[in-house]
Amino acid sequence: MERIPILKVGGYLLVTIQVELHDQLALTLQDDLTEKISSTGARGVLIDISALDIVDSFIGRTLAHISSMARVLDAATVLVGMQPAVAITLVELGLHLPGVQTALNVERGMALLESALVEHDDDSDDE
Amino acid sequence: MERIPILKVGGYLLVTIQVELHDQLALTLQDDLTEKISSTGARGVLIDISALDIVDSFIGRTLAHISSMARVLDAATVLVGMQPAVAITLVELGLHLPGVQTALNVERGMALLESALVEHDDDSDDE
Repeated sequence: MERIPILKVGGYLLVTIQVELHDQLALTLQDDLTEKISSTGARGVLIDISALDIVDSFIGRTLAHISSMARVLDAATVLVGMQPAVAITLVELGLHLPGVQTALNVERGMALLESALVEHDDDSDDE
Repeated sequence: MERIPILKVGGYLLVTIQVELHDQLALTLQDDLTEKISSTGARGVLIDISALDIVDSFIGRTLAHISSMARVLDAATVLVGMQPAVAITLVELGLHLPGVQTALNVERGMALLESALVEHDDDSDDE
């Protein structure tokens, strides 16, 4: 099982990370996700990390990379389901997730994406 | 990571199985899922198995059990994302998934749940 599934839910892509993200798996996820954004035209990506007990600097960097790649393809990324202990550790260790938005759970993440899309479209209209 | 996350998406619960379902993990999933159906009042459960290369009789039985438990709690279960090779193997081995509905992907699974709910509600109205 060397692939993290990417599900299309509504107009968004949903990725649930349940296994340890080693180098190769992270690269495969990046490839698959960019491919899928391109093929589905999804405007948002939700990454659920509720199964992760630890978010170290490697995972943080991977998530930031994925988010940047998605942004280039015009899709916003929201990280959802972070465990309270993970949030505490991130702040205590001074780890940042640059450019990554977070939401409590999938439903709030979707709401965030909806509102971001509305704003984005409004901005485009102004130009 | 000894827990499979259960995500609430729309009015449904979504479970993505990515790791090998051993005995204890299957029991934990059953407990968590029934608990979550009860606490959220979800009317449907989508189980994504796109990451599974093999569905053996143990997994098949576990999925059938989960589906039966969900039904008792008034929630329908749809299995989504089955790989073509898995479908071939299931039929060739004569394995059945009693009481489990299937759909090609999450979106079709949701559509199936929607239509099942409408029928269900219509039936209730007739009584």
